[in-house]
Amino acid sequence: MSPAVATQATVDLRDTPVVTIDLDRLEANIRRLQAYCDAHGIANRPHIKTHKIPAIAQMQMAGGARGITCQKLGEVAVMLDAGITDIFITFNILGEAKLERLRTLASRRGARLSVACDNAELARQLSRTFADAAEPLPVIVECDTGMGRTGVQTPAEALALAQLIARLPGLRFEGVMTYPIMPDTRPFFEAALAMLNRAGLPAAAVSTGGTPVYPRAHEVPGVTEHRAGTYVFNDRATVASGVATWDDCAMRILTTVISRPTPTRAIIDAGSKTLSSDLQGLVGHGRTVEYPDAVIYKLNEEHGYVDLSACAARPEVGEVVSVIPNHTCVVTNLHAHLVGVRRGRAEVVWNVAARGLVR
Amino acid sequence: MSPAVATQATVDLRDTPVVTIDLDRLEANIRRLQAYCDAHGIANRPHIKTHKIPAIAQMQMAGGARGITCQKLGEVAVMLDAGITDIFITFNILGEAKLERLRTLASRRGARLSVACDNAELARQLSRTFADAAEPLPVIVECDTGMGRTGVQTPAEALALAQLIARLPGLRFEGVMTYPIMPDTRPFFEAALAMLNRAGLPAAAVSTGGTPVYPRAHEVPGVTEHRAGTYVFNDRATVASGVATWDDCAMRILTTVISRPTPTRAIIDAGSKTLSSDLQGLVGHGRTVEYPDAVIYKLNEEHGYVDLSACAARPEVGEVVSVIPNHTCVVTNLHAHLVGVRRGRAEVVWNVAARGLVR
Repeated sequence: MSPAVATQATVDLRDTPVVTIDLDRLEANIRRLQAYCDAHGIANRPHIKTHKIPAIAQMQMAGGARGITCQKLGEVAVMLDAGITDIFITFNILGEAKLERLRTLASRRGARLSVACDNAELARQLSRTFADAAEPLPVIVECDTGMGRTGVQTPAEALALAQLIARLPGLRFEGVMTYPIMPDTRPFFEAALAMLNRAGLPAAAVSTGGTPVYPRAHEVPGVTEHRAGTYVFNDRATVASGVATWDDCAMRILTTVISRPTPTRAIIDAGSKTLSSDLQGLVGHGRTVEYPDAVIYKLNEEHGYVDLSACAARPEVGEVVSVIPNHTCVVTNLHAHLVGVRRGRAEVVWNVAARGLVR
Repeated sequence: MSPAVATQATVDLRDTPVVTIDLDRLEANIRRLQAYCDAHGIANRPHIKTHKIPAIAQMQMAGGARGITCQKLGEVAVMLDAGITDIFITFNILGEAKLERLRTLASRRGARLSVACDNAELARQLSRTFADAAEPLPVIVECDTGMGRTGVQTPAEALALAQLIARLPGLRFEGVMTYPIMPDTRPFFEAALAMLNRAGLPAAAVSTGGTPVYPRAHEVPGVTEHRAGTYVFNDRATVASGVATWDDCAMRILTTVISRPTPTRAIIDAGSKTLSSDLQGLVGHGRTVEYPDAVIYKLNEEHGYVDLSACAARPEVGEVVSVIPNHTCVVTNLHAHLVGVRRGRAEVVWNVAARGLVR
């Protein structure tokens, strides 16, 4: 166990719901992704939105990560406080209040912040903010290579934005990024990198992201770093994607059967305020480890509805069961604490320091 | 404005996402439900899970509420601290750690706690906990009158559980409850109340719940109190139910357009960690007040995807828009603060004191 993880007082694992993280699995997950990155000479820049806990980010850094990825300035502040200084913010940071905070955070001792950008208005706002900074701000052009979210839409747009960034005072064009790796990532990046090279703006960073796709990162042309988040805990969605097994799922939510109103229905004390409503394209809201044939078919805020029809054995009122969630990142964000366990015993209680820091 | 709501420092409403509560609408919502209850002689016992803020509970109490409803002991502790003492916990409170906390909370000066119960195992656990208490614990039998969640399944089961509660030391049978009001609520309660009367166990409390159904509470046989939560803010789901209008929606999430990657797509900085993924049976994830023809068709953790195809006017990068969420209760739970506004100006910042207290 990392020395950065402080052991704390005992916690009652029967006082549910409790979000547990199996430390053996967590450590193995950190090692596995790092080994992949090391084998392919790709820098590992894990996305901390999955755990929002400085101690776990420090485990990732100690394991070999180059730096981390954050989505929000609140997360950046928490991680800088913990001594993690190389941070890529994969979000368009817009507006006066945020830009002022970004400038302040970037000026902290040792901080090496970089930001994503997908439009000219943002590039100009960033430039106005950093025009008189001691160091230019590294800016990475976000490319939409098939996700249909943020990002410039074509290699030509990527070049035009890179040229604008290179021209603007206070900024340094640093490279390109995408999320996740898609079938169009290769042709998009091949074309964009060629155009950038021809224009004399080679990309120092070519950054890819995503847990389900991480084993393909080395196939992306010019890739220099990968950003994965969920891999650290894994969940029902990453198992469904084939990149993890149930044994790799470090997060399990302990929950109590509070009612058995009918022979086939159980109600657990884990609802949408515990598991979130994220389906991630799956049927049901989690896997019940002890009763894998049970289906969590509906959630209210504090109630989970479980169909036991397919179960030979069935839990009684008061029984505590473990649920692997569909989407681990949003579960973390709902809880004040995660409990690190080893062989079923609580070993550490982490404060989810960057929880709910949505700005 | 209630004197219990302290005015605080100014807040930057452009530093999004920000969850705002329009105070005029909030006050009108509190008055409207109270007027309905008063007109029908029904006690008003609002469910505070919607706001989790003591100051708003105090506004409800000052407006005429008899007491409040909580779902979790963590909420109870926060509300007792704020001087609100008459609390009905509509959740099966099971297990040693929670029962010990319940006993401690119930023994606080002036506290008048009551709990729901839908099974014999829980009744026995409650009895063991309160057997030597100075005052018996009032226990209300939860009836499943069509929701298919918790609750005894038949009037005969309600009677049997009431008789057990009446026999067990430390407990007092207090009545029956259901959530929400359904077509079967009337026949179920008519039969159950008749059986209870014949058995010499009249229900002192007949408690119904729900915002969309509150205008029908007075039609429920023997009803003594109603528990509504969402009415205090309202949301897209309560508007869809017909019980509220857009003008009654006090909660609006201010969010910035951070990207306009295509002519028809906008990306806002409100995703599932801001709005939650709760669809509540609706299409899309919220109503954009300034662009009502926009469709928030998908959410990632910090990104909302907006389809502008149907919009004549379209927002630019950097524009702040207001979103009425599908489900207000889960939004509150995602945020550290809500900002009370009046005529568009911030007037108060509330700490969401009972946020994430899932135990």
